[in-house]
Amino acid sequence: MLLSGGLDSYTAAAVAIRDGFSVAALSINYGQRHVRELEAARAVARSLHAARHLVLDLDLTRMGGSALTSRAIDVPKDQPLDPEVIPPTYVPARNTIFLSLALGWAEVLGASDIFIGVNALDYSGYPDCRPEFIAAFEQMARLATKAGVEGRPVTIHTPLVRLSKADIIRLGLSLDLDYGLTHSCYDPFPDGSPCARCDSCRLRAAGFAAAGAADPLLQPRR
Amino acid sequence: MLLSGGLDSYTAAAVAIRDGFSVAALSINYGQRHVRELEAARAVARSLHAARHLVLDLDLTRMGGSALTSRAIDVPKDQPLDPEVIPPTYVPARNTIFLSLALGWAEVLGASDIFIGVNALDYSGYPDCRPEFIAAFEQMARLATKAGVEGRPVTIHTPLVRLSKADIIRLGLSLDLDYGLTHSCYDPFPDGSPCARCDSCRLRAAGFAAAGAADPLLQPRR
Repeated sequence: MLLSGGLDSYTAAAVAIRDGFSVAALSINYGQRHVRELEAARAVARSLHAARHLVLDLDLTRMGGSALTSRAIDVPKDQPLDPEVIPPTYVPARNTIFLSLALGWAEVLGASDIFIGVNALDYSGYPDCRPEFIAAFEQMARLATKAGVEGRPVTIHTPLVRLSKADIIRLGLSLDLDYGLTHSCYDPFPDGSPCARCDSCRLRAAGFAAAGAADPLLQPRR
Repeated sequence: MLLSGGLDSYTAAAVAIRDGFSVAALSINYGQRHVRELEAARAVARSLHAARHLVLDLDLTRMGGSALTSRAIDVPKDQPLDPEVIPPTYVPARNTIFLSLALGWAEVLGASDIFIGVNALDYSGYPDCRPEFIAAFEQMARLATKAGVEGRPVTIHTPLVRLSKADIIRLGLSLDLDYGLTHSCYDPFPDGSPCARCDSCRLRAAGFAAAGAADPLLQPRR
């Protein structure tokens, strides 16, 4: 299970557990501006009683090319989401890289199921969140590994891909998830609190509003 | 260009340069037992006058599962190559992971061509060295990236995929390559010299023999 520390992968992992899977969680410290999300990933993995949690270092700032991996590129704030434009927070080939790492670890563990919390409805237009990408990755994976060629191909599960953000939140709340553990903001304040102005914060806020729920992250601190 | 420090990727890079490409070389420090190959990669990149050489750390020993990434698994020695059996030096999903990183970096650089020195003839039976895997990866990559969906898909070049090891060596020698710069052994002695007994050493030796050439690595040191 790819676990970012965000709301979506937490919910996808909870679905996997609901469906009877034992979860090995993989998080990547890729130099993301919002490294705070890794603390959230650790809290989420603990809360889900994940059997394993591997946090792997892979410094994608050496490549740059995204607002999340290069300080030279600003995170857009207060801009309407245009479904026709892929925003500068897109990280080149990120999900391909992460799924490849998950594919390798799955083979080592003898696992045939990979869960990823991609969503192609209330999202930022990233190409590697779409079902057609996932299907092509799965196809490629069957040819890529020893397990695949020996008849134990991997299945990529995307339980959220067709859900709205509000549906995801409703699903998670029905599974008693504590979204106060998660982190979504691309460009948090130094204390880790969300900016409330980036695409990720705004998609999250709109989702909670549409679900008729309060975001525990935005409640007064106890 | 994925550049390992081995004989094949050196030759593939030289073919790219012969064909007019400017080369950005990517090497991965993945915790391979034969980390000596990274020194070879640096020497090869310098010798080819690569425009860029990025050596990225990605510690796959955290996952293990291969003789190259786990001290708990031995590198086979003096064993005949059985085309039906994938040996323990297979690293789960390695080429998928490396090509994914190359895909991301290519997009950042604005490059549309990735070279990889895979070979499906005189090889160790790794599934991710076969043309059908490369074709599936290329297909997936078209859907994975912003560049792909915007009509600038990447092409994966495998100039060696159908060559014998002897043909590869002949090709490289015709391009004046110095194979003394390279490293092939999976399990070198502490001083970096090849074991001469692992699959990689034996494929290399058989290739030089069939090409009627002497391996400069095995010449007396000057």
